[in-house]
Amino acid sequence: MAQNKQLLLQKRPVGLPKSDTWKLVETMIPEPKEGEFLIKCEYVSLDPAMRGWMNDKRSYIAPVQIDEVMRAGGVGKVIASRNSKFTVGDSVYGITGVQQYVVTDGKGFHKVDPSLAPLPMYLGTFGMPGMTAYFGILKVGELKEGDAVLVSGAAGAVGSVVGQIAKIKNCKVIGIAGGVDKCKYLIDTLGFDGAIDYKNDDVKAKIKEYFPKGIDVYFDNVGGEILDAALGRLAMHARIVICGAISQYNNTDEVKGPSNYLSLLVSRATMKGMVVFDHAKDYGKAAQQMGQWMLEGKLKSKEDIYEGIENFHETFLRLFSGDKMGKLVLKVSEG
Amino acid sequence: MAQNKQLLLQKRPVGLPKSDTWKLVETMIPEPKEGEFLIKCEYVSLDPAMRGWMNDKRSYIAPVQIDEVMRAGGVGKVIASRNSKFTVGDSVYGITGVQQYVVTDGKGFHKVDPSLAPLPMYLGTFGMPGMTAYFGILKVGELKEGDAVLVSGAAGAVGSVVGQIAKIKNCKVIGIAGGVDKCKYLIDTLGFDGAIDYKNDDVKAKIKEYFPKGIDVYFDNVGGEILDAALGRLAMHARIVICGAISQYNNTDEVKGPSNYLSLLVSRATMKGMVVFDHAKDYGKAAQQMGQWMLEGKLKSKEDIYEGIENFHETFLRLFSGDKMGKLVLKVSEG
Repeated sequence: MAQNKQLLLQKRPVGLPKSDTWKLVETMIPEPKEGEFLIKCEYVSLDPAMRGWMNDKRSYIAPVQIDEVMRAGGVGKVIASRNSKFTVGDSVYGITGVQQYVVTDGKGFHKVDPSLAPLPMYLGTFGMPGMTAYFGILKVGELKEGDAVLVSGAAGAVGSVVGQIAKIKNCKVIGIAGGVDKCKYLIDTLGFDGAIDYKNDDVKAKIKEYFPKGIDVYFDNVGGEILDAALGRLAMHARIVICGAISQYNNTDEVKGPSNYLSLLVSRATMKGMVVFDHAKDYGKAAQQMGQWMLEGKLKSKEDIYEGIENFHETFLRLFSGDKMGKLVLKVSEG
Repeated sequence: MAQNKQLLLQKRPVGLPKSDTWKLVETMIPEPKEGEFLIKCEYVSLDPAMRGWMNDKRSYIAPVQIDEVMRAGGVGKVIASRNSKFTVGDSVYGITGVQQYVVTDGKGFHKVDPSLAPLPMYLGTFGMPGMTAYFGILKVGELKEGDAVLVSGAAGAVGSVVGQIAKIKNCKVIGIAGGVDKCKYLIDTLGFDGAIDYKNDDVKAKIKEYFPKGIDVYFDNVGGEILDAALGRLAMHARIVICGAISQYNNTDEVKGPSNYLSLLVSRATMKGMVVFDHAKDYGKAAQQMGQWMLEGKLKSKEDIYEGIENFHETFLRLFSGDKMGKLVLKVSEG
């Protein structure tokens, strides 16, 4: 009889997660009760934010508990239903967790259409990362036509969409990414105006070169030294969107605060934190707009898909080594 | 014959200024040319921002050059005039520099009325610090009635006005200051709801106690550990006004960046830098409003006046030791 493979948080990591951070267990496939339905999860989303959810610390969402299924967004198909709104065969997105089967009452789940876009894209450009990019750059970053825009983590699921949206809005866009291939991809495939390879370039010098008049919007996914380099080159009234800080998530010491934060004063600039959930009521509009751009060939989406729930740990670490391109997705079962 | 005593920047300080940072010289009293007038400076303003002007670094204003008169705001009387807009006997405010006499064409100078307020008050509550407080808390901080407000450097020229304005706007106001006397002054004289003595209290614990629901507006004059403590206790959509960072101005190491800056994300908060000059066109309105509050007894002003241009160095250091109360002013000559 089929079992449900589930990935549990076994131990809170200190620094980078180790293989004993997780525990893979097999349990009975749960049965939906009245009002519930059963999903077979096909793909789960691997995101930097998940590292934060593993810390026992006040944040924008409760921490994952020990021996709980690791929280993750996922897409899959309804295979049994006692809920009138969801029918067997529906494809759905929601916080499935890292597991092969999940029962839910539907709260936080919505249907997705696999004929419009492949399922993994609903974890990326049409999912949380895409929404984060859309609201982050347009609303929080208050993007204006002609702005000089810098984005870090630019080859990632959020950064790549941020940069493309800024290009659509006729901005000058420079991306920061790790390695020659990613930088080439940003320019050749995504149409960025320039790229900075933080693994090989002098980031500060390159920023100065690319932004002779300063940065109008800096979209930060990484924190650390790169945030400081950007703060050192702000234009007047610049906006800094704090979306994440992947360079700091596995710190065992204190987070490195931005030493150059006083340039906020010099440049009368604003640094603003964002969490995508605040914009939930407008997800539909954003998805429609992004779909339109995709049809017009202005917006490209890239998913990097690995297979096997038993490979979760190694795949998850690619977020931090940078050894992936675009949206990182794990296929946990056959659809 | 009378001479002009002038305080020159002799050497750029590393860390806290030393006595050889400055040089006191005597020169001939300058003669006004056509269109100019001569001011006898009576009081000069001593402000934390002056420390920044001494560094050879890009900022919101050019650095003071070596062997140049140290830049400072000042008030005095016109004693000779070949300018039709300024008459002998007029009291004026402007960037006089730390000296006893100055000739100017009037650019950046304006008349003040000594019958409305004593001259030193035009360096404090009716001068740059007061304007900084007014626009900083109301405009940059977007203060709303009922906000829970924390201000650091609260017994200083800016902080004391920030807190009083927030009280006028029916906010809960807690001030951070150094020492029992200053804390007592904040509560008993200025009407703050509470005070935290950073020299003796556990600042983090006290902030937690005073702000059970979090801080709506934090007005920061100090930076460093106190900024981090405030960031650790933000309410949703909090605003942090970055006005200064006195704890960092004499650093010989890198500025301490706010390690807790990711709470901007958790709390969807905004950190915004300000420079008062941006609000120059509205100074008149602000001064009128503050004058009105003063007449109504809602706004109190305190100046701490020391005497003698030869005592500039020791007096200036009081800004950093905290050994002063309210607006620090140096009397450089008899009016």
